[in-house]
Amino acid sequence: MTEPSADEFRKLMEGVFEQVPFVREIGLKLHGFNFAEQTLSAKFARTPKLIGNHFHNILHGGVIATALDTVGGFTAMVAAYQRMGGAIDWEEKVQRLTRLGTVDMRVDYLKPGRGEEFICGGSILRVGNKLVVSRMELHNEKQELISTGTATFLY
Amino acid sequence: MTEPSADEFRKLMEGVFEQVPFVREIGLKLHGFNFAEQTLSAKFARTPKLIGNHFHNILHGGVIATALDTVGGFTAMVAAYQRMGGAIDWEEKVQRLTRLGTVDMRVDYLKPGRGEEFICGGSILRVGNKLVVSRMELHNEKQELISTGTATFLY
Amino acid sequence: MTEPSADEFRKLMEGVFEQVPFVREIGLKLHGFNFAEQTLSAKFARTPKLIGNHFHNILHGGVIATALDTVGGFTAMVAAYQRMGGAIDWEEKVQRLTRLGTVDMRVDYLKPGRGEEFICGGSILRVGNKLVVSRMELHNEKQELISTGTATFLY
Amino acid sequence: MTEPSADEFRKLMEGVFEQVPFVREIGLKLHGFNFAEQTLSAKFARTPKLIGNHFHNILHGGVIATALDTVGGFTAMVAAYQRMGGAIDWEEKVQRLTRLGTVDMRVDYLKPGRGEEFICGGSILRVGNKLVVSRMELHNEKQELISTGTATFLY
Repeated sequence: MTEPSADEFRKLMEGVFEQVPFVREIGLKLHGFNFAEQTLSAKFARTPKLIGNHFHNILHGGVIATALDTVGGFTAMVAAYQRMGGAIDWEEKVQRLTRLGTVDMRVDYLKPGRGEEFICGGSILRVGNKLVVSRMELHNEKQELISTGTATFLY
Repeated sequence: MTEPSADEFRKLMEGVFEQVPFVREIGLKLHGFNFAEQTLSAKFARTPKLIGNHFHNILHGGVIATALDTVGGFTAMVAAYQRMGGAIDWEEKVQRLTRLGTVDMRVDYLKPGRGEEFICGGSILRVGNKLVVSRMELHNEKQELISTGTATFLY
Repeated sequence: MTEPSADEFRKLMEGVFEQVPFVREIGLKLHGFNFAEQTLSAKFARTPKLIGNHFHNILHGGVIATALDTVGGFTAMVAAYQRMGGAIDWEEKVQRLTRLGTVDMRVDYLKPGRGEEFICGGSILRVGNKLVVSRMELHNEKQELISTGTATFLY
Repeated sequence: MTEPSADEFRKLMEGVFEQVPFVREIGLKLHGFNFAEQTLSAKFARTPKLIGNHFHNILHGGVIATALDTVGGFTAMVAAYQRMGGAIDWEEKVQRLTRLGTVDMRVDYLKPGRGEEFICGGSILRVGNKLVVSRMELHNEKQELISTGTATFLY
């Protein structure tokens, strides 16, 4: 296959995103995607199975971590793809992107995860030829900042 | 209700653990529990929905974060409960324990999450009168160390 | 002593900042201070003793961590002071602020610490009645982002 | 130069350790070194300039972060050196080890840094062909655990 256009690349990312089993489980869906700015966002709705503290009806911390890790990782893929540039052919890029993995992540739980719908955005702090550092934020539908995170990815 | 015995406290913990919706979703079950040493472990099996990278059939990082956060939090509850001691009555203890929440967490993904069954253990690094710091580890059935984490909890 | 004005509070902070022995050792000096926005910045110059990697003449990671921790902590003090509000008297506020301590911190080293002069800024992610979460950034004189951090403080 | 023996490698490490300007500033000295187990420790004494909170006479968090980062990094060097193995010649190994840098670090401040003398130990959680993850602990002379940390290094 030849190198995709920015638009084709976005469609590919969407396809991959939707096929990740645990991402489907959470109901997380790709929402925004800015190829040039290397930012990305995804949304999910609160459903009963995502609750962690049923005394207070708030999201499980693991749901939030899942959203942050996923969004951070896909944002990192966009940055890594662009970083690889023209010298590396498409086949090798695909191989490296499918191997991209989280090295470590910090999550800060700033407010209890209350809300109906959540949006998680990712941006890039650093992209090197092996590592990418992404920063992530999760807001609810009232624009309250619920959680932030920073993660390092290897590709 | 009067103060429970160590054994009754364990049963209570088990009951609460099993009722957390997202913990059930993952299939995570309380396995070991040592009241005196303030350690705890939980197990889960790999199922198709827990996969994150279907190119390589490995657990989603969010599943691992969920296991670490849950086990770290329940271990913290055991330590916080003992720390509150005799001066605080049982009702107030229950109230504070049900409000216990994760402040922040670091997860290190040391190896890809390959395996059939995973065990996650938690122990205590610090217990204060407001904060608990737990350390967590996740192994697969071959005793390979897949992931470690450290988390701070407020109660 | 009676409650200080915002301006007097700033002067007090400056006084305390300058008296911290290890902060003097680094040569870190309070630079900007915005009481209303709860942001703060500090500067230091590269000196030979601050070098970590003498093969590449870059700052030691510990110098960067020191700047981030200090700036994050003083920013947290400003936020904690305001959070305590009118119901707590000045004496008690002082006591609580002098006990403010770092619970945990993550530092990301995004670029090697090259430069002549460094500026470190702090802002607030969350302020509660016990905990404050600060975010910090370190730039060199070319406005290159060298490092970011997130830290949790207890007061 | 030809490949050094384990003993010569230790001496080299000691030499490099002692020459890091900011490590000398702290007074940190290599203490234990186990090539086979890939562990390492270093000591320093409390001196007036290392104080962070002069109200309570405790170490600055940045001093602790400096010790953890340094010990973690040198432990990582030992592991990275062995990981590179026989296929990479000594010159290239030296080049890669001198470029080894901290990617990110989490520090947990478990107890106030009180004491006369501090010992900081490092061990390895993971060593790959690009990344090493080290875990670090800092105790005082009463064997109280003051701080722990986890850091990721790139080489």
